Amino acid sequence: MTLNRQWLLAARPSGMIGPKNFKYVETSIPKVANGEVLVKNLFLSFDPTQRNWMVDKPGYLPPVELGEVMRAGSVSQVIESQHSDFAIGELVQTTGCWQDYAVVVPGQGPTGINKLPPGVSPEMMLSILGITGMTAYFGLMEHGQPKAGETVLVSGAAGATGSVVGQIAKLKGCRVVGIAGGPDKCAWLKDVAGFDAVIDYKNENVSEQIAIHCPDKWDVFFDNVSGPILEAALEHLNLHSRVVMCGGISNYNNIEPAAGPNNLSNLVTNRGRMQGFIILDYLPRAMEAIEALMGWVASGDIIYQVDMQEGFENIPRTLQRLYTGKNLGKQLLKIADPI
Amino acid sequence: MTLNRQWLLAARPSGMIGPKNFKYVETSIPKVANGEVLVKNLFLSFDPTQRNWMVDKPGYLPPVELGEVMRAGSVSQVIESQHSDFAIGELVQTTGCWQDYAVVVPGQGPTGINKLPPGVSPEMMLSILGITGMTAYFGLMEHGQPKAGETVLVSGAAGATGSVVGQIAKLKGCRVVGIAGGPDKCAWLKDVAGFDAVIDYKNENVSEQIAIHCPDKWDVFFDNVSGPILEAALEHLNLHSRVVMCGGISNYNNIEPAAGPNNLSNLVTNRGRMQGFIILDYLPRAMEAIEALMGWVASGDIIYQVDMQEGFENIPRTLQRLYTGKNLGKQLLKIADPI
Repeated sequence: MTLNRQWLLAARPSGMIGPKNFKYVETSIPKVANGEVLVKNLFLSFDPTQRNWMVDKPGYLPPVELGEVMRAGSVSQVIESQHSDFAIGELVQTTGCWQDYAVVVPGQGPTGINKLPPGVSPEMMLSILGITGMTAYFGLMEHGQPKAGETVLVSGAAGATGSVVGQIAKLKGCRVVGIAGGPDKCAWLKDVAGFDAVIDYKNENVSEQIAIHCPDKWDVFFDNVSGPILEAALEHLNLHSRVVMCGGISNYNNIEPAAGPNNLSNLVTNRGRMQGFIILDYLPRAMEAIEALMGWVASGDIIYQVDMQEGFENIPRTLQRLYTGKNLGKQLLKIADPI
Repeated sequence: MTLNRQWLLAARPSGMIGPKNFKYVETSIPKVANGEVLVKNLFLSFDPTQRNWMVDKPGYLPPVELGEVMRAGSVSQVIESQHSDFAIGELVQTTGCWQDYAVVVPGQGPTGINKLPPGVSPEMMLSILGITGMTAYFGLMEHGQPKAGETVLVSGAAGATGSVVGQIAKLKGCRVVGIAGGPDKCAWLKDVAGFDAVIDYKNENVSEQIAIHCPDKWDVFFDNVSGPILEAALEHLNLHSRVVMCGGISNYNNIEPAAGPNNLSNLVTNRGRMQGFIILDYLPRAMEAIEALMGWVASGDIIYQVDMQEGFENIPRTLQRLYTGKNLGKQLLKIADPI
């Protein structure tokens, strides 16, 4: 009898998360009721925001409960279907969570269940055409509102969202400066992703380097990181600048909340704006982003990078990679091949 | 021979400003060239932002130089005119600075030189119809965008801007909660200015009181204060909330920059916006605000409060009143009666 392997949330996080926060169990494969679909997870998505779901605090999604399977996006294959829209063998994107098998109800869950379009691989569906690519697209276009000739600064620039933000901004005629950790990521951003300049926050003074690489200051700061990098950035904002608040990965594993930037008043003198957003609000417009991004990928204008791990046992430590800066590009893990 | 008394900027501020930062001198009355106007200052305006002008740091206006007359808004009377638009005896609003007599050039200076409309007193021109009233109007309407039924939270609520913000928000159908220091200011806000609820930050826990008085959280936070009050407010923001960043008077006299709020990430989860603005950008639209405010004052829908000091020798310590919370409503000082 085949079992359903699962990683449950076992302990709410305090400080850096890791395998200690999760518990491995084996259960039976769930039954499917009318209107439901049974899927087998093939690839799991790892996203910085997952750390926030582990905390018992009201958020944009309910917290994962202790003893509940850890929530995660997935590309999965339909194994059994009691819903006329889905056939056995089809590949879908859904919220399969950290387990082999999941029962999903079409129309429910954070992202619902969506078939992979023809020619779209699981890696694309979970990266450039998935939540992270759409976050880059809508965050930059709706909240950053880049104009040709402007300077766009991106933190977490070698991540799945930041790397796409920079490339879209280049396509919009902007000067693009990325902030990332370590020479490898910086070299990749400059040589492969086509950023105009990069700053290695692990080895350089970020504020000084922003002054050098943004001679006209910056107009858009797409911030995935928050913390001291946000403070450094706010030293160099231009008049009428926009801060796109996408995330604050530098703070997610703090035990005590970290102080905010000491120079928020620069937003007043420069008439700047900071705007937070959640990509789930834009899912009704997903096709707008997907069509644009597919076109840019097909034309070679945008490249995307996937950091693929393997093995069910490695799931918890793969999530940890995001917060220790190990990943270059979108962090995925492969559980199984399709049938 | 009549002399021109002046207060010069003598020392850039470190910590709380006061008389030590200024030097009293007497000079001769300046000569007037063609196209210029000589005015005698009658009333001076005191505004929190003046502290920022004293610092040698690029801002939205150039810093006041050491040895230069301290910059200030004024209502003044035309004494001599070499400009056909202005006649001797007319009352004008301009940037007369901390002195008895000023030469002004129509069309120049932060606010130019504007005649007082019929029926408008100097007190009105420098408060409800001046920079502080317009700041309230444009800050709330353009950046706060209040909708009927929403909750508007105001810090520095007993000040010249905050008190008007709350009253406009009431007129727009909002629930209005003010934060001010001390029972007298709180009583005035509730009993005279018509706020729905008030929080005394000197004697109450601000975050707990916001939770009590904003049962549906807040939708607009008009912040004149920044610092710990901003942090307390960010604990209770509603989805799609707007923070109108008007000023940060709690930080202006810090020697070291104070840490920012530790919960900026609440802007992300709640899709919130923080927007700084400078009223000078709106001066081309001044009449829009003035007409609305004059109407509300005439109908009794908005009251305004002036805190009037007297005496040229008291100018420096009158500025200090703003940062020690002594003023209720708009801080002015009378230098002289009109002719």
